[in-house]
Amino acid sequence: MRKVSNVSLKKPIFVQGLPGFGNVGRIAAHLMVKFCGAKPYAELYSPSFPDYVTANSKGICRLPRYEFHAAPMKQNDFIIMSGETQPSFDDVLSHYSICGEVLDFVEKQNCSFIITLGGVPITEEKKQVYVAATSPRLALEFMEKGAVIYSKGKIVGATGLLLALAKERNLEGVSLLGPTSGFQADRGAGYSVFKFLMKALGNEIKEGL
Amino acid sequence: MRKVSNVSLKKPIFVQGLPGFGNVGRIAAHLMVKFCGAKPYAELYSPSFPDYVTANSKGICRLPRYEFHAAPMKQNDFIIMSGETQPSFDDVLSHYSICGEVLDFVEKQNCSFIITLGGVPITEEKKQVYVAATSPRLALEFMEKGAVIYSKGKIVGATGLLLALAKERNLEGVSLLGPTSGFQADRGAGYSVFKFLMKALGNEIKEGL
Amino acid sequence: MRKVSNVSLKKPIFVQGLPGFGNVGRIAAHLMVKFCGAKPYAELYSPSFPDYVTANSKGICRLPRYEFHAAPMKQNDFIIMSGETQPSFDDVLSHYSICGEVLDFVEKQNCSFIITLGGVPITEEKKQVYVAATSPRLALEFMEKGAVIYSKGKIVGATGLLLALAKERNLEGVSLLGPTSGFQADRGAGYSVFKFLMKALGNEIKEGL
Amino acid sequence: MRKVSNVSLKKPIFVQGLPGFGNVGRIAAHLMVKFCGAKPYAELYSPSFPDYVTANSKGICRLPRYEFHAAPMKQNDFIIMSGETQPSFDDVLSHYSICGEVLDFVEKQNCSFIITLGGVPITEEKKQVYVAATSPRLALEFMEKGAVIYSKGKIVGATGLLLALAKERNLEGVSLLGPTSGFQADRGAGYSVFKFLMKALGNEIKEGL
Repeated sequence: MRKVSNVSLKKPIFVQGLPGFGNVGRIAAHLMVKFCGAKPYAELYSPSFPDYVTANSKGICRLPRYEFHAAPMKQNDFIIMSGETQPSFDDVLSHYSICGEVLDFVEKQNCSFIITLGGVPITEEKKQVYVAATSPRLALEFMEKGAVIYSKGKIVGATGLLLALAKERNLEGVSLLGPTSGFQADRGAGYSVFKFLMKALGNEIKEGL
Repeated sequence: MRKVSNVSLKKPIFVQGLPGFGNVGRIAAHLMVKFCGAKPYAELYSPSFPDYVTANSKGICRLPRYEFHAAPMKQNDFIIMSGETQPSFDDVLSHYSICGEVLDFVEKQNCSFIITLGGVPITEEKKQVYVAATSPRLALEFMEKGAVIYSKGKIVGATGLLLALAKERNLEGVSLLGPTSGFQADRGAGYSVFKFLMKALGNEIKEGL
Repeated sequence: MRKVSNVSLKKPIFVQGLPGFGNVGRIAAHLMVKFCGAKPYAELYSPSFPDYVTANSKGICRLPRYEFHAAPMKQNDFIIMSGETQPSFDDVLSHYSICGEVLDFVEKQNCSFIITLGGVPITEEKKQVYVAATSPRLALEFMEKGAVIYSKGKIVGATGLLLALAKERNLEGVSLLGPTSGFQADRGAGYSVFKFLMKALGNEIKEGL
Repeated sequence: MRKVSNVSLKKPIFVQGLPGFGNVGRIAAHLMVKFCGAKPYAELYSPSFPDYVTANSKGICRLPRYEFHAAPMKQNDFIIMSGETQPSFDDVLSHYSICGEVLDFVEKQNCSFIITLGGVPITEEKKQVYVAATSPRLALEFMEKGAVIYSKGKIVGATGLLLALAKERNLEGVSLLGPTSGFQADRGAGYSVFKFLMKALGNEIKEGL
């Protein structure tokens, strides 16, 4: 974990969007970074990330990583985390330990609330956003804001794991899940999740984004 | 490992039924929890369990876990352990270490006897229950109660491993195995194993359960 | 590692035959145990062995293990190691660490020489036995006894690894490899390797074994 | 890590070429060892390497390893590392830790520069050499020498990982990548990379090599 900025944040909301079903979480997080004008804040490197390296447009190589962006906003300050990868599906221990590292950081940054963004493979047409939460009160609160309770389902990977591990630490939060048909990038579902989140938190979005 | 109740138990019998062939063990353990009116007693969490999370009917998420239920009964007190998962097939080290944690708990609870419930992929029609044991005397004892000796076979996963590791600690016990045709949930085989176990331990079951 | 006998051995030769190509090594080791009337000497258990358990003819379950048999013979004393399993192909670290444990035992028992028995997937018809060694002198010595130098090939699994790791400890030894067509048990190749070994070490075998 | 020579080198350039796409890196490194008349310098063994063993032409077995050759040259001294293997694709942790061990050695040898050689699966016909670097200045420098910037791509395995981890230690270097059609050994691409490298470093090659 490497800090790259010293922006001061006030009890920020932590938002995570990583690759997964339809890349919904990652797309939603990227939209949010753009919308909020969030700036690089910290980076997490891990030997559990895949062993490839990416070269940018100038041919400069770098390790896979999670990127944290900070956005001081009127309503709330945000830390938005995304990345181009997750640990391998098979490497369960790494999933747990990296979520643990993220939560250590979340606690150290004094975050007041955790929101994980992701996709769920649901075939129906409706453009709903589903919610799972750390408490019945929170699930109801987001239901009143327009989400559908995600009941009796599984949430795969870091989207669910971070939230469930947060609950074990007595942190509060929700997962917002966009239904998506498949494995290719689903920009529509990502946008729905992003739009719902911004509205739920009291930020108006112009449709043209 | 987290205790969730302080019910006092007298040299309880420990019963384990996890998912596996035909889900026989898990089904039998669930029937037993219902039959005995067993109450939540403890929970085991592990970073070796799969990295998905389950949401309940109210949308509340939680980590995968093993659940221990306690049932103080006339004949015997029981601790019944079940769960929705096992560590990955490939992660052998985790299988050993989690069975070790379970046995530490079993010893601490002063359990007098261990019974693991599971399925075996046997194609014949007969509705027998097979028994493997930590000693010839026990195998014979359960044979006299109607089980068939499970000879020269393999017992895959926690069903066999817990018993063999228990034997290494000089604990006593048996595996009761219901023959099942395949990988889909086999409620019939689960019921047979459950029924045999209850009868073997001196509990009468009304057929309507 | 658990000692089960206190037979006293004089600079024994260590012989290893585990499952693998055509089960040649395991078959050869079993023939040798029978021929020498070798008695149980020690057992090695490891959480890296597969997570299944085997029940014997009386329904008694036990963990997978390596078994060491001791045979005090006229020409040489032997310790013969076999087992029903190897660690998973994927679990390379376990392969190295278990071979290390075996070699610790080999050194502690003051073994003078190491022989690993195995199969090689060679399609030609000839019933030769191949040899790889820790030194050119030894390779030549076994060539003179009738083996063919195994040149420019790979030796997969514990058969090769134990020998190469032994060499790193300045121990001496050879691998004797029986060509076999495939993955099913090849009793003929196992017998050839066994026969060659016994002859090379100066023990006459009656053909009827 | 085992030193096998005490040749004294002056701020050597470290060159790595391991098996991978089209074996380009390994082929280029071998050509360089031959061209420079490099001598064995050090060896790296690891329990993360595959569990097979290779027998040489005399039947002598040895563990898989990375081999380091030293070449004191007029223009620059070189340490050239190659090997017949990489850790398994799945074992990401080992990839990181072995690259770390290599870089510890690189720093201890006071290497001034790191060059990793590899292949990239590119279908176009042109026989270019691609470059990725630890800094824009270096990428430009090698572009001026005739390489094409490798932009927005992935570099898989040790070729990319060593460079990116080197960058984290503030070491400088480049990856030189030969486009190759596939998985079989591509001697042409290996030769192109080797030739480019020698020319870039000011060593003339006679075409007949």
